[in-house]
Amino acid sequence: MTATIEDALAAALAAGAEVRGSTSPNPPVGAAILSADGEIVGVGGTQPAGGPHAEVMALRRAGERARGGTAVVTLEPCNHSGRTGPCAQALVDAAVDTVCYLHPDPNEQAAGGAEHLRAHGITVRRLDAQAPDLLPWLTATRSGRPHVTLKFAQTLDGHTAAPDGTSQWITGEAARRHVHEDRRRRDAIIVGTGTALADDPSLTARLADGALHDRQPRRVVIGTRDLAGSATNLHRLGFEQYPDIPGALEALWESGARDILVEGGATLASGMLEAGVVDAVQAYVAPTLLGGGAGVLARAVAGTLADAAVFDLADVTRLGGDVLLTLTRKD
Amino acid sequence: MTATIEDALAAALAAGAEVRGSTSPNPPVGAAILSADGEIVGVGGTQPAGGPHAEVMALRRAGERARGGTAVVTLEPCNHSGRTGPCAQALVDAAVDTVCYLHPDPNEQAAGGAEHLRAHGITVRRLDAQAPDLLPWLTATRSGRPHVTLKFAQTLDGHTAAPDGTSQWITGEAARRHVHEDRRRRDAIIVGTGTALADDPSLTARLADGALHDRQPRRVVIGTRDLAGSATNLHRLGFEQYPDIPGALEALWESGARDILVEGGATLASGMLEAGVVDAVQAYVAPTLLGGGAGVLARAVAGTLADAAVFDLADVTRLGGDVLLTLTRKD
Repeated sequence: MTATIEDALAAALAAGAEVRGSTSPNPPVGAAILSADGEIVGVGGTQPAGGPHAEVMALRRAGERARGGTAVVTLEPCNHSGRTGPCAQALVDAAVDTVCYLHPDPNEQAAGGAEHLRAHGITVRRLDAQAPDLLPWLTATRSGRPHVTLKFAQTLDGHTAAPDGTSQWITGEAARRHVHEDRRRRDAIIVGTGTALADDPSLTARLADGALHDRQPRRVVIGTRDLAGSATNLHRLGFEQYPDIPGALEALWESGARDILVEGGATLASGMLEAGVVDAVQAYVAPTLLGGGAGVLARAVAGTLADAAVFDLADVTRLGGDVLLTLTRKD
Repeated sequence: MTATIEDALAAALAAGAEVRGSTSPNPPVGAAILSADGEIVGVGGTQPAGGPHAEVMALRRAGERARGGTAVVTLEPCNHSGRTGPCAQALVDAAVDTVCYLHPDPNEQAAGGAEHLRAHGITVRRLDAQAPDLLPWLTATRSGRPHVTLKFAQTLDGHTAAPDGTSQWITGEAARRHVHEDRRRRDAIIVGTGTALADDPSLTARLADGALHDRQPRRVVIGTRDLAGSATNLHRLGFEQYPDIPGALEALWESGARDILVEGGATLASGMLEAGVVDAVQAYVAPTLLGGGAGVLARAVAGTLADAAVFDLADVTRLGGDVLLTLTRKD
């Protein structure tokens, strides 16, 4: 059976998803090479910073069979010689016939790849599809700060704990497993000092059996309260602390983080909304009602309905007995 | 093309859905007759109390062509001579070969239909499917009080109004249209006196252009506060008032209501949960955060997480930019 562009695209998307969480500050790109006789002959994802980009990984695997073929890449091939040579030139050197890409490169330094390819006689097509795993990086690059996702694990009525403070577990096992899978793909997990002091969290990405995932995000605490003598798990595992949200976002950006997950508490979540930096919300909602206890937000972020923080409902996914609602910033 | 049992079942379910809201205290049953040569020759739904049941409606339309055919009914045919003759006997008289039904009749007075049919040589099969539009009636009949659905229109964080009281509109047009479609299928819409006084609601089922639906639920207020001189719309349209929840449920049951929708406010919703009478929750959730303002519940209904009101997540449906989460009582 002959593989199609769609098959190559699926392979490229999967390769990009696979490397997400390990490439920052570079984007988690995926690439696949479809040979002239319709076989997927090379697939690759971007390697950790300093290593080869996705196109080069895929071309290496394809070898001579790339000649006359089609490269499918989730991001416009870069035209920039940073720590690695430009990918656009590597595609020219491999003598592919066509390059299909999904997202244009928003990075001025790296852009121009499509032009370079066309100038060398390669057919260039932009595909009408999105690479979900690239979206945080794209947003971060455009905004000049890390892409911020707020995570809630909540009852239907917006509570994260009962009046007596009990909160384990509001959501079921499938939702909790999803959280750990998600953590693995982020550059950093953030909590406020209140959560660090109250919950002694580990902020690790763990497998169902409790073992650590192969990839761990940075552990970050925001706030000025002193954690000395408490937050035992964070002290054991290591963490960074920043006094406030703007300082944390700047330091994280400068040190290469592009995609960060804010896991609580309610004070930090409210602060992120007030600062206008929330790009996405992932709410794991349990079919449960409490009527009291801690809420997902610590204080009103709007006095009147017209000023509410309004998002787009990007995705709805059932997870066991719960549902994950993914909200994204309104265009 | 020859129709199948599945086609007849779909027709029966649609006929039952169509009459829902007009049959109480009788169940909104649907029936379809598949002739011996594989044609759907009669479809019917139960008529308002005192009128013919679904089977009789379908048989009338089928006439002689019912002979040797198959009747598909959403509820076990009744064996009870109330205001109408027993449906089981009508099927025997029509000389159908087979009767397929979905739910056994929980009503002791009316049960025994399957037995009666078998005693007359008719093949009886129970189909492995549910009639969603019959579930409230079935629950009500088993519990001896109306089936209670709480309706919320809320932000993701569980608010129904901003701190300044603004609440129009938290959810979008598709969600609001769905509410009106839903009201039309209920026996009564209930609010507390607080909502009646604050919002001056009409509690009518309206079409998109504001015109009234052909079918209107009863308008009911629960609470002891005097509405004289206010709640203008309710006074104009007519309403019933009951002092408390147990009294209201008993009076509604006695007067034939089986399926009621509680639309607010937060005090009444909390009271219904505390009374343990909530069979379902329909939450229209907007991808919006407020952090303050009125909540869906007025007070904690559990002090600790283990005592939370836990439901099953029965359905998730996107409605425009919002999502409808339907919760049902845990089995």
